[in-house]
Amino acid sequence: MTTTISINDSHRLLAKQLDMAPRLLLGPGPSNVPPRVLQALSMTTVGHLDPLFLQMMDETQTLLRYAWQTDNPMTISVSGTGSAAMEATLANTVEPGDVVLVGVNGYFGHRLLDMAGRYGADTRKLTKPWGETFSLEELRIGLNCHRPAILALVHAETSTGACQPLVGVGELCREFNCLLLVDTVTSLGGVPLFIDEWGIDLAYSCSQKGLACPPGIAPFTMSPRAVEKLQQRRAKVANWYLDISMLCQYWGNERTYHHTAPINMNYALREALRLVAEEGLAAVWARHQANAELLWQGLADLGLTCHVPKEFRLPTLTTVTIPPGVDGKAVARQLLQEYNLEIGGGLGELAGKVWRIGLMGFNSRRENVILCLSALERVLKNF
Amino acid sequence: MTTTISINDSHRLLAKQLDMAPRLLLGPGPSNVPPRVLQALSMTTVGHLDPLFLQMMDETQTLLRYAWQTDNPMTISVSGTGSAAMEATLANTVEPGDVVLVGVNGYFGHRLLDMAGRYGADTRKLTKPWGETFSLEELRIGLNCHRPAILALVHAETSTGACQPLVGVGELCREFNCLLLVDTVTSLGGVPLFIDEWGIDLAYSCSQKGLACPPGIAPFTMSPRAVEKLQQRRAKVANWYLDISMLCQYWGNERTYHHTAPINMNYALREALRLVAEEGLAAVWARHQANAELLWQGLADLGLTCHVPKEFRLPTLTTVTIPPGVDGKAVARQLLQEYNLEIGGGLGELAGKVWRIGLMGFNSRRENVILCLSALERVLKNF
Repeated sequence: MTTTISINDSHRLLAKQLDMAPRLLLGPGPSNVPPRVLQALSMTTVGHLDPLFLQMMDETQTLLRYAWQTDNPMTISVSGTGSAAMEATLANTVEPGDVVLVGVNGYFGHRLLDMAGRYGADTRKLTKPWGETFSLEELRIGLNCHRPAILALVHAETSTGACQPLVGVGELCREFNCLLLVDTVTSLGGVPLFIDEWGIDLAYSCSQKGLACPPGIAPFTMSPRAVEKLQQRRAKVANWYLDISMLCQYWGNERTYHHTAPINMNYALREALRLVAEEGLAAVWARHQANAELLWQGLADLGLTCHVPKEFRLPTLTTVTIPPGVDGKAVARQLLQEYNLEIGGGLGELAGKVWRIGLMGFNSRRENVILCLSALERVLKNF
Repeated sequence: MTTTISINDSHRLLAKQLDMAPRLLLGPGPSNVPPRVLQALSMTTVGHLDPLFLQMMDETQTLLRYAWQTDNPMTISVSGTGSAAMEATLANTVEPGDVVLVGVNGYFGHRLLDMAGRYGADTRKLTKPWGETFSLEELRIGLNCHRPAILALVHAETSTGACQPLVGVGELCREFNCLLLVDTVTSLGGVPLFIDEWGIDLAYSCSQKGLACPPGIAPFTMSPRAVEKLQQRRAKVANWYLDISMLCQYWGNERTYHHTAPINMNYALREALRLVAEEGLAAVWARHQANAELLWQGLADLGLTCHVPKEFRLPTLTTVTIPPGVDGKAVARQLLQEYNLEIGGGLGELAGKVWRIGLMGFNSRRENVILCLSALERVLKNF
């Protein structure tokens, strides 16, 4: 091979062997990954059309249906993070001019609005202060006023720690002939969630919270009603990578190549879902609730208050009000530096006002709760 | 936790422990992943804003610049597969009505056309039979006729095995005041490639071929000229997930949260790039060339012919003409079943006409070449 250009070695970094500190990840995600999932992740890579891989995809779909409590045939893993799956719900169903009504009571409601707008939606919003939720009556008034094609709500607002009640919302959306799109990023695998019973038409999640798989692959599901809207589109989906009309030919019987699936991430997701199926959803949900209550009691004992009233509080993610005079960022930094413990800060309206403590998936364990409380107590003494 | 809905166990699959056969992946990708990269992949997950992770991102950017021979500040890993990075190049730079001229001489030229159209481009194409390449004179005529904002070419057509010469194309694009976009999916880490010297403004690749990392993360680079076009956009990028104007705030000094980075996939990519830097590009390219030539000689000895003339043949991926009367699919199936050896079939115009044999990254080794030749010889005897 002859080439007249000489190779530039200025960026030829002699980097050290990768090493990472043993962090306990009690922030808003990612969560720590259980050994079995890390083992699956590093299994021998095979081809994306290998019969062994195709069989594994079928199993992943089944396990996802269990975790989400849905029979939707179109239940897959999207080859990106939760935000890609979020965009997939909108990209496939929004046509220019469609009214999309978003319940905005936190950071991710804003993101849904931003994304929907990029696909030409006529975006409308219902707003609530960050940390509050929408009542059925408020949603009815919103639907009646805006008559949207899609109502988008965040089940578990990662930015606020509030859980949006969903019982009855599906019926309401049918009454107003609109699709119900729900963000389940911080609820799947941690909080009771019934896609079919609740009449949810479009949902997405991530891998790195309740499922305790590394980030980089994302659950996505779509009801037959939503598929119908996709099939009736006048124009192509305005996003090639996330075009479900093409992806369903890879996940379906045709097995037509679309893009090379993230093989090892799919291994990890399957193992994470297998752990959920082994433990069983009832036990998973009860564990998350019990450990969250232990945390809440401990926080109260330290004189700290939660931002969300108990009735609407997520067991997966707790927002803790930063006491007056305390530098929240400095506390988080000290927890990381002195105890290898990661907790999150606030976003948007809640920046500087709350810490976010996640107890999700593998990390929802009693020992993590008491370690977190003890570290927080010790660090707060310095402030 | 009380809930009145009972959990449906119909999808509660009791799946077996994950296991995969020890495939040798000599198809068009993914390639086998070296042990060091699999080890890095399963390193402890940390947070996407952890100082340790941010430092690792910087190192990855530097190593990517080396592999691509570029100083572009905007050189990052996209949180998806190569197709996502492909779409990122177009999504960020195409505005509705922009003329995008694509050299179509294989499957991926068609994909570029499809994607560009979804972002409102006025798409034009130069076509050549699959397996051929464009001369500088042909490109000049095309640029003169169509006067595009972007010329898109595929450096290494994974569907045909042809290598598009790029020397002089960058100058031509400057003469016609257009950006040069290049697909380097099957060239990065295997074939001489000089982003800056060749005047390439936008390039993308994948992780799972020359770099021998699992699929699911994708190199992306953008020259200052291309960044300028992005900054002058009239409207938001019509794709939230791939919006470089937001992503650059996470990769830059601000470290503003956009989406949760695929932590472990980034570990793996860094290790894969570290292996390239250790071996050095000159040695990497020479190894790919030498092993490809060993393969070509062996194929000739078996009486098989390559689809692409030697002058334009990729060392990373060889298309082999299926002899008359031989069932190509049956041969590939037998290689997989009897020897755990994966090779690829043809796509599009070349479906049923060629096999695709990849020797990429970690897999470009003498022992793999002779195993492939020997297995092929044995299987072909039955046909």
